[in-house]
Amino acid sequence: MDFLVIGGDAAGMSAASRAKRNQPDMNVTVLEQTMDVSYSACGMPYNISDPNRDIDDLVVRQAQVFRDKQGINLLTGYRARSIDPEAQTVKAVDYSGKEATFQYDYLLIATGASPIMPDIEGIDSSGVLPLKGLSDGRNIKAYLRQNDVRQAVLVGMGYIGLEMSESLRERGIEVVGTTRGFMRNYDEQIAGVVKETLAAHDVSLYTDHTVEKIEKNGKNLSVVCKDKRLEADMVVMGLGVRPNSEIAADAGIKLGPKDSIAVDRKVETSLPEIFSAGDCADAYHVVTGEKVYIPLALVANRAGWTAADRICGKNVYLQGIAGSAVFKVFELEVARTGLSVKQAEEAGFDPASVTIKARSRAHAHPGATSIWVHMVGDRESGRLLGTQMVGKEGVAHRIKGPTVALHAHMTVQDFSQTDLAYAPPFSPVWDPMLTAANQLVKRL
Amino acid sequence: MDFLVIGGDAAGMSAASRAKRNQPDMNVTVLEQTMDVSYSACGMPYNISDPNRDIDDLVVRQAQVFRDKQGINLLTGYRARSIDPEAQTVKAVDYSGKEATFQYDYLLIATGASPIMPDIEGIDSSGVLPLKGLSDGRNIKAYLRQNDVRQAVLVGMGYIGLEMSESLRERGIEVVGTTRGFMRNYDEQIAGVVKETLAAHDVSLYTDHTVEKIEKNGKNLSVVCKDKRLEADMVVMGLGVRPNSEIAADAGIKLGPKDSIAVDRKVETSLPEIFSAGDCADAYHVVTGEKVYIPLALVANRAGWTAADRICGKNVYLQGIAGSAVFKVFELEVARTGLSVKQAEEAGFDPASVTIKARSRAHAHPGATSIWVHMVGDRESGRLLGTQMVGKEGVAHRIKGPTVALHAHMTVQDFSQTDLAYAPPFSPVWDPMLTAANQLVKRL
Repeated sequence: MDFLVIGGDAAGMSAASRAKRNQPDMNVTVLEQTMDVSYSACGMPYNISDPNRDIDDLVVRQAQVFRDKQGINLLTGYRARSIDPEAQTVKAVDYSGKEATFQYDYLLIATGASPIMPDIEGIDSSGVLPLKGLSDGRNIKAYLRQNDVRQAVLVGMGYIGLEMSESLRERGIEVVGTTRGFMRNYDEQIAGVVKETLAAHDVSLYTDHTVEKIEKNGKNLSVVCKDKRLEADMVVMGLGVRPNSEIAADAGIKLGPKDSIAVDRKVETSLPEIFSAGDCADAYHVVTGEKVYIPLALVANRAGWTAADRICGKNVYLQGIAGSAVFKVFELEVARTGLSVKQAEEAGFDPASVTIKARSRAHAHPGATSIWVHMVGDRESGRLLGTQMVGKEGVAHRIKGPTVALHAHMTVQDFSQTDLAYAPPFSPVWDPMLTAANQLVKRL
Repeated sequence: MDFLVIGGDAAGMSAASRAKRNQPDMNVTVLEQTMDVSYSACGMPYNISDPNRDIDDLVVRQAQVFRDKQGINLLTGYRARSIDPEAQTVKAVDYSGKEATFQYDYLLIATGASPIMPDIEGIDSSGVLPLKGLSDGRNIKAYLRQNDVRQAVLVGMGYIGLEMSESLRERGIEVVGTTRGFMRNYDEQIAGVVKETLAAHDVSLYTDHTVEKIEKNGKNLSVVCKDKRLEADMVVMGLGVRPNSEIAADAGIKLGPKDSIAVDRKVETSLPEIFSAGDCADAYHVVTGEKVYIPLALVANRAGWTAADRICGKNVYLQGIAGSAVFKVFELEVARTGLSVKQAEEAGFDPASVTIKARSRAHAHPGATSIWVHMVGDRESGRLLGTQMVGKEGVAHRIKGPTVALHAHMTVQDFSQTDLAYAPPFSPVWDPMLTAANQLVKRL
């Protein structure tokens, strides 16, 4: 049996490895257009912060290991160009420009996503750099090494922008962030705490700004907004990503939200024997039951496994994602799961919400800091719809409680009754999430 | 309406305060035998570690505040002696020995628990000290202040023993722990990590030992076991607690496990208009549905609220406890929820389990340490039955995920599909709990 995978990153390599583990005699071929497979993309901002660390530290497994140890026919430098679903073939071109055709019994499209680069003047200037793949990380580190970067402008303040603001400040670089909104899917108070921390670390933040063009004069870059002109030695583009779904669309495969590749809970596309997983594919949201495009690492790995398992005849399904995310920015941990109030309204719920501030440790326990919890519930069903948190400790892992509750479609009342373990170094007797739930119950 | 509460600690004062908030015109009387109400009992080991901190720092609210600000008739120094359920009265005696009778429409028994002090020779010696109430903490601090304590023996290595071992080592005191078993409701590997850490901090541990007597010669204490004699300047008794249920039993109220006061999900006892909450009462276990006696702070507070709410006509129920617990011992965080393999077998399940070791942070992220996850599932139903963890970071709050899963009666398979948020500073892409769940699924 021939299992062909387009794309050798998280989803693709997870699928290839798992298929080989499931059925060692399966012919598994992976076409990867770069030379990099299996690396920790999310670790790049933390690596970039340290001039002494090699970006290749983030490589988890070398391509040769997949070939030698796992028997995967991993072809790096191969770019897939078209799929013929009738003939069950994929045409690709290798690094030298030579064309080749690959036959498949099962195909996985794991083409990932590309950073959004707006079509504005100067976007191609040297020193205007996105951060998505390992080569992007390499470019940024090389640019920092080769240039005297004293001031950077971040265009877009999503997770990449926020993490890069810390990373570059650690290198002593002045950082200016420009963005249209700021943490728009977060509660205002939660976002406000992050804003204050950015200010405390001298990250200037210009919200409500759209970049109109980028000018380059010698080594100097200028990011030009309508009413503002920001000077920079380097510009990091963090406007999010768009799915690499063209090859699927051209083959007649149906697309989902934001032109991602539509897959069902078996990660099958609309065409037979063709699966899709990772940053190019959509997913079901466990709270709304609707399709969403939220490309993150865990679901990429999990969807890759699911594709491999199904191809090997296992009756497995992907339940979906809860919209969970966590990030660190300076001393803050920020986490969310489920829907914001606005997202809940858009999904047809009748949301009520509460935001509370509590202590991270018990009364009189030394070292306590503040923790903010925002919780959203549905007035009609009583269901918990989402939770957001920010604080200096106890946030990143605490979010796992409400995440599980969302998967279980638990009510706020039921969540408020959960036996969340307590000890003075870790929380008050009533966990801040229980305090939030107790208050939210009254508003439902 | 007269609401009478016996016991002014966590459950009693929670109930009294909430009843007053619900119905400000209610007559709420609390009989408390000590002079201490509303303090953080769990904080005592951390306070004892620091000679410069006053134990009274742990007092959350002074008695007078409950009287003046909340209008609660809080009678400290009053010991309840008997309940007459027919007449709806309670007889008490005050600190001066004067008797008084109190009428009630509703009664809450929140008499708490007492430290188990075995009936052995020398148990009453000066320097042999339990740790349960604030007065116990006061006694230990006073003893440490007034004596040159260089060596302490801990009898019993439950939560109190483990926390006190750290507390006393911080004061430079040599610590020897003696116990019959060691973390018997924990997986062997999890317990083994704790053992190693105790050893690394020079806490000597003698397991499989039962104390036969304690000898006192001058200021010196000797803890005598069958084949061992341990010298000490102070002995801390940490053999657990037993519920103060005599007054309830004498009134004809039915008792539950370990002679705790049996209550239903409305926290009502077997007699009308009489409720019970806190360390004297039992609870339902959400995994087994059976009654258990696991006295901890959160359920005490919650049960107190439930009693007050029901008395005020609210239709609320206690769902029960999941057996969650978390503690810190030196640099380790240890947490559990649900059942151990042994407890699962005793409850009639057919358990399978797995213990995995993972990294606390992503590949190549600096500062990663090890984290161990033990997970128990039921072969018959596929349900998640329990989870235990130990590590230097990310344990205390991580346990909240499986705790919520136990409340929702989730299967291991469903838990393995949860969207647990990931970022490199906090975990690998696959959270260690998901890795454990993925492996456990294969054994079910």
